[in-house]
Amino acid sequence: MVNTRLPFTLPEYHQRLEAVRRSMQTQGIDILIVTNPSNMHWITGYDGWSFYVHQAVIVSLTDEPVWWGRPMDAVGAEKTTWLAGDSIYSYPDDFVQNPEKHAYVHLCGVLKDKGWDQRRIGVEMDNYYFTAACLETLRAEIAGVAVVDATSVVTWQRSVKSEAEIEYMRRAARIVEATHARIREVTRPGLRKNELVAEIYHAALMGADGYGGDYSAIVPLTPSGRDAAAAHLTWDDRELVKGEGTFFEIAGCYKRYHCPSSRTVFLGTPPKEMLNAQDAVLEGLEAGMAVARPGNTCGEIAEAFFGVLRKYGVEKTSRAGYSVGLSYPPDWGEHTMSIRPGDRSVLRANMVFHFMPAIWTPEWGLEITETMRITDEGGPECLANVPRELCVKE
Amino acid sequence: MVNTRLPFTLPEYHQRLEAVRRSMQTQGIDILIVTNPSNMHWITGYDGWSFYVHQAVIVSLTDEPVWWGRPMDAVGAEKTTWLAGDSIYSYPDDFVQNPEKHAYVHLCGVLKDKGWDQRRIGVEMDNYYFTAACLETLRAEIAGVAVVDATSVVTWQRSVKSEAEIEYMRRAARIVEATHARIREVTRPGLRKNELVAEIYHAALMGADGYGGDYSAIVPLTPSGRDAAAAHLTWDDRELVKGEGTFFEIAGCYKRYHCPSSRTVFLGTPPKEMLNAQDAVLEGLEAGMAVARPGNTCGEIAEAFFGVLRKYGVEKTSRAGYSVGLSYPPDWGEHTMSIRPGDRSVLRANMVFHFMPAIWTPEWGLEITETMRITDEGGPECLANVPRELCVKE
Repeated sequence: MVNTRLPFTLPEYHQRLEAVRRSMQTQGIDILIVTNPSNMHWITGYDGWSFYVHQAVIVSLTDEPVWWGRPMDAVGAEKTTWLAGDSIYSYPDDFVQNPEKHAYVHLCGVLKDKGWDQRRIGVEMDNYYFTAACLETLRAEIAGVAVVDATSVVTWQRSVKSEAEIEYMRRAARIVEATHARIREVTRPGLRKNELVAEIYHAALMGADGYGGDYSAIVPLTPSGRDAAAAHLTWDDRELVKGEGTFFEIAGCYKRYHCPSSRTVFLGTPPKEMLNAQDAVLEGLEAGMAVARPGNTCGEIAEAFFGVLRKYGVEKTSRAGYSVGLSYPPDWGEHTMSIRPGDRSVLRANMVFHFMPAIWTPEWGLEITETMRITDEGGPECLANVPRELCVKE
Repeated sequence: MVNTRLPFTLPEYHQRLEAVRRSMQTQGIDILIVTNPSNMHWITGYDGWSFYVHQAVIVSLTDEPVWWGRPMDAVGAEKTTWLAGDSIYSYPDDFVQNPEKHAYVHLCGVLKDKGWDQRRIGVEMDNYYFTAACLETLRAEIAGVAVVDATSVVTWQRSVKSEAEIEYMRRAARIVEATHARIREVTRPGLRKNELVAEIYHAALMGADGYGGDYSAIVPLTPSGRDAAAAHLTWDDRELVKGEGTFFEIAGCYKRYHCPSSRTVFLGTPPKEMLNAQDAVLEGLEAGMAVARPGNTCGEIAEAFFGVLRKYGVEKTSRAGYSVGLSYPPDWGEHTMSIRPGDRSVLRANMVFHFMPAIWTPEWGLEITETMRITDEGGPECLANVPRELCVKE
């Protein structure tokens, strides 16, 4: 019985699994413990806000993958994945957040039952959901276990998107367009920031073109004035005031696929330094996009962009973007390629990047960003169509 | 210069720090690397959606704590913490999500500079934000490092709330009351689930009594019908239909403090098994609360509750609650005490629990929950006042 709510076709899932297995073989991995929720979803379709307890998908080179987690979430695995029921394993509920017993003791039992404990086991060493305690438990339960760092095995397979994935990201783009339109409409002096964010969420979840919005992997970042010097402050309930800019770092999200897009609104008259930075960013975006084509590298996009910034005398020490697509909290980036000098990752068609040349100074922040798809037809495609210029309102 | 946006007074922060240090001394820890964002916030006031990159607060027994993170977030640390500027350290941006260099190489440099590398170092082994790679890097960079599991050192200090924290949780309670009122108002057949969730977010962020809503550490969980058999499914864009129940597991959030509260709405006529389960849950809640007083244990609450369930012939294999308060995604639970048989944690006044006796069957789910404060005046105080009974609508 095919699960009719799967977001992609079964052949697409099978292709993904084969790609993962090829990568495992290249890296000498027999058994892969996948804990990154985006990777779990990409391979099996598994969806749910259950990543706050230990769970995993275990991939071998031959057998059907195993889903492993909490009993109440095994029900979710039956409903959302393409796996057969006998591939779904769960641990007794008293392993949940119990200081006296770690869930990986149970996971190691599953590995032993399957005869997988003596194989070379790949783990996602630097993923949020594979804690140090997971590794320590693995080592304590399986003497001499051969562990390989596999943080990037699945994430890299996700970097070139399928047509179906691109379609979801385009729907997310329609959603972020509608959300920015709402922001431009309602932002005004005297509006409390939490009220503004309420409007952002409402627009993003209502969706666009009949496609409902999903939750974004990062909440809206919307700092104003000098607070916008800090990249990742969230909102409070103070009123917006005249004479301040506010950047809106948001994403549309459709079925876990993101289209991030940042814009800045200024209430009153922007300082000339901000307008100079805007000129630099707009020209820098174009310069970066001009070299964003298959065969070039992420580093080359960065060099082109930072060259323009230097010409304008604008300083920026952080990276200018990263690959995006499917994601779960706490990050919508894929943790593979970055748009920064020296990143030698080679661009291919249907890679998608959040080109994110934000400028933060001690006095203000300016964000004008684009999510762009690398194409075979020359330049990249900006997924969302939102006016780039600073929105100036009284 | 005192940071005027700190959510608590400086003396309260100093008391917290002293409590953490006493616990460190008891456990033989000289240096504590705090990575749990809630713990970082509780000790220093640090706030921001930056936990998707490596960051920490480092506590010694004598010196002012150190904030360590990304440069753009160091700006946020200056704005949100009570720490002096020279206690804020940052690493070059190319340590961010760079497969070739881990940020903890830099952290170890800080430990060495401070002369802290040869001390006994506590780390939060089972926190999302202390990955296996953090531990491996620590061991690779500091030969023979003495590492102690300190997952619970700060979390346990947070379990008894101050009056100021209780006040924030009461504001969160007003917010969740307003949100449930909106849910009861708008839920109807034909409404798309994403539209309903848009209303939930709007109400939760608008806040109550003039206090704006903050983002909750878990998104609204709102599955309907047979999907409500799975505890942690999130929403889609299908219409609500008659003959199905929907549970709403949500929280009000004010300045990162949560008041979770779940209720269930049924469109049409609920099945009699659900009504029987409701009777069991309502009586079980009362039975649990009757023993929820200082000196008793979490396990005793669970025994009282599960005794009632058995009487009604209702099965539940998962825990029935956990301590709550301050939190960041992906979980609003504190990961200390659980309301489950055998949990010997002793209740004290101003501990707060999400008493969460959810019933999931293959056909439906029913959630009626209370966030309760343990008091010295006999029974617990339910922070939110929301009608408990199933809301039945046509």
